Amino acid sequence: MKHFISHLNRINIVNNMKFQPPKGTRDFLPEEMIKREFVINTIKNVFVKYGFEELQTPVFEDWNLLTEKCGEDIKNQIFKFKDKSDRELGLRFDLTVPMARVVASNPQLPKPFKRYAIAPAWRYEEVTAGRKREFYQCDIDVVGSSSMEADVECIAAVVDCLIALGFKNFEIIINSRKILDGFIELIKADKKKDVDIFRAVDKIGKFGEEVVREELTKAGLDNEQIKKLMELISEKGIFKKTLEQGKKLLKGIPVGEEGLKEMEELFEFGKIYEIDKMLVLDFSLARGIDYYTGPIFEIRNKTGEKIGSVTGGGRYDNLIELLGGRPTPATGISLGIERIVEIMKENKMFNLPKTNVKVFVADVKAKKYAVKIAQELRKNGISCQTDLMNRNLTKQLEFADSLGIQYVLIVGEKEIKSKKFKLRDMQKKTEKEMELKKIITLLNRNYK
Amino acid sequence: MKHFISHLNRINIVNNMKFQPPKGTRDFLPEEMIKREFVINTIKNVFVKYGFEELQTPVFEDWNLLTEKCGEDIKNQIFKFKDKSDRELGLRFDLTVPMARVVASNPQLPKPFKRYAIAPAWRYEEVTAGRKREFYQCDIDVVGSSSMEADVECIAAVVDCLIALGFKNFEIIINSRKILDGFIELIKADKKKDVDIFRAVDKIGKFGEEVVREELTKAGLDNEQIKKLMELISEKGIFKKTLEQGKKLLKGIPVGEEGLKEMEELFEFGKIYEIDKMLVLDFSLARGIDYYTGPIFEIRNKTGEKIGSVTGGGRYDNLIELLGGRPTPATGISLGIERIVEIMKENKMFNLPKTNVKVFVADVKAKKYAVKIAQELRKNGISCQTDLMNRNLTKQLEFADSLGIQYVLIVGEKEIKSKKFKLRDMQKKTEKEMELKKIITLLNRNYK
Repeated sequence: MKHFISHLNRINIVNNMKFQPPKGTRDFLPEEMIKREFVINTIKNVFVKYGFEELQTPVFEDWNLLTEKCGEDIKNQIFKFKDKSDRELGLRFDLTVPMARVVASNPQLPKPFKRYAIAPAWRYEEVTAGRKREFYQCDIDVVGSSSMEADVECIAAVVDCLIALGFKNFEIIINSRKILDGFIELIKADKKKDVDIFRAVDKIGKFGEEVVREELTKAGLDNEQIKKLMELISEKGIFKKTLEQGKKLLKGIPVGEEGLKEMEELFEFGKIYEIDKMLVLDFSLARGIDYYTGPIFEIRNKTGEKIGSVTGGGRYDNLIELLGGRPTPATGISLGIERIVEIMKENKMFNLPKTNVKVFVADVKAKKYAVKIAQELRKNGISCQTDLMNRNLTKQLEFADSLGIQYVLIVGEKEIKSKKFKLRDMQKKTEKEMELKKIITLLNRNYK
Repeated sequence: MKHFISHLNRINIVNNMKFQPPKGTRDFLPEEMIKREFVINTIKNVFVKYGFEELQTPVFEDWNLLTEKCGEDIKNQIFKFKDKSDRELGLRFDLTVPMARVVASNPQLPKPFKRYAIAPAWRYEEVTAGRKREFYQCDIDVVGSSSMEADVECIAAVVDCLIALGFKNFEIIINSRKILDGFIELIKADKKKDVDIFRAVDKIGKFGEEVVREELTKAGLDNEQIKKLMELISEKGIFKKTLEQGKKLLKGIPVGEEGLKEMEELFEFGKIYEIDKMLVLDFSLARGIDYYTGPIFEIRNKTGEKIGSVTGGGRYDNLIELLGGRPTPATGISLGIERIVEIMKENKMFNLPKTNVKVFVADVKAKKYAVKIAQELRKNGISCQTDLMNRNLTKQLEFADSLGIQYVLIVGEKEIKSKKFKLRDMQKKTEKEMELKKIITLLNRNYK
């Protein structure tokens, strides 16, 4: 009985695992990491081809820097702490603000500064299946150019990323903060409340019109204004047609007209970069972050019935000056890794092995020789493992199989003498005897 | 005068940069990132060939997890904070504890679990030129094997990393916590104070014997004991000779004899992995972290007059059980990226370009065609930039040169008609006219 209880206790200890990743964060085990690495490497490869270069910044920043232009919603989501000298710090909530700081404090950087960054950020949000508190972003930004071409280049690069990953059916939603500013002027709302109005409008896709109306009321709009604004932002569709409609609506309102002129330029550059057919002008797109000043964009992917935003960005011409730098126009776009991986999993878009280990070098009382062979394989660029547990051959094969390793190379006394080794294909259940040189050729040929 | 002051003010604003990276952290600009990426990719490549697989964990962990077995010194260095639900969290101080947590809470993982991780960790230390509060580690660990082969494999993999990076002159310093435990028994010191004694001994290389004596006094040792311990740990040198000396010293002390037996096994495996000639047994090696239980190791690199530790690790057979898992032996080793990059810079070991951008496609009033060519280059895997600033040709060339881009391809009306383009080598100051197809072949051939 005592033994039985102790056994139960042990099960209990194992099941009530003492420590888990903190709420809102996850561990990524090797099989998952292969998918993530595939996505990240594919994206990185496109970014590099477009001439973006990597910048790395610390995970935490000065609290005042982070909150200078992030808005109340995000301010409340920042993980805040102090270092031992009582400096107020926070985990970054995006990769744009840190980059803007670097540009502000490095005026010597040649412009345009085209940078990419692939790194985590943190926001204390309600945790859902799709939303965590630690998330990885892939960002590109063009800093120093006020041309709409910079915006279009960023969008085109991200479109190429999505195509390289196997995405097929997506649309690029575009709007401009200047158009929205024009609407605010048009309905005679308080300009100081523009950010509250943007944030209210931003909720339309996620929470529906009713919530937006409530939020707009909170932002000080009366029913008449809300009705008119809701009408204005309902314009959406074929780029050119919506643009013409916008021109009618915003005639005589300079900021709105400027926004529309930029949209027109953006569309023309879109033709050059061959993304014009995917462009949708949607006056209800607002984006949640405060620092945007011009064009804003979002790419929505359609797989089956579902439509989801996989990327978003916009122009932020004031941010760098605000953080102490020279006046510097800038624009950028960000891809969410977790969202992309989830969509790709749901739609079975991955065709990747369970493990990067290509071959397991099993030995039957031939440790020394097996290691020698493994080292030779490694010198030839082949990923392999050897037995580190003093297991018998059956157990070694079971282990290789449990990891999903495709090949097992078997080394025993006989093989050492004949210099021919059995290579077992664990998936096809076939076995061949070959010299090491041939095995290396075969494994390198099959290497993905 | 007013204008002059305003001009001064502007200079002032730019020079007194508003925001800097938080103390103890750094930004890595593109030219530096090329070096870091080279180091990381070289190391990753070796890790993968040795059959290690990637694991990714959150940057912060439960406070209790981090402090369960880290010791007081490190506990005081952790960046601590609370989330909005008052959970106590801390930025990880290494990559081993998070990995041990993952293994503890995922008992289904096949053993040995061979994982690598390349990621940042944080410790609030006194900031010096070489030591920051945010630092990147490259770790490999073999979890589930108690064989000394696992330790040797980790060391051999890291040796291969260093060789691949161009390091030539290094030694592998080995000791065992069990040998140190044997010494503690031998001098009849309080076993409960072992960790304090280890930490005191660990300071010998950095702070010298005097500091160690002081710390040992604090740990409760009398002068006699200190004298004897200092004698014992002074043994160092040829592995086999030091081993024999150790056997004499620790005769009849089981834990010490076990440690020496393991050292002997480790040395034998060292022969198989061909690292035995680099092994140095040094009884004064102690390592600062509490969780080690068996062999501990450090690789010291000698360049010119300087000797510096570039990697360290050891066996920690109790940690996973302590974090709620099944009893699981484990060992691992860690490389510090910043240390390696600094040594490689000092010794001019890098031979890398300033930029990954291979070619700048300059245009003389031929925007559309230039973009078309750039997109064609990108499709062929060539990193390029185009003008995003509406600059004239001279300015475009100056910009390309300021980034260190090797080639400029010039597109104008004449070139569009003739379908031959000037390719200027900015370094060699030469220029050729070629068809695009030939340019692509040439650039791809020259690609590093």
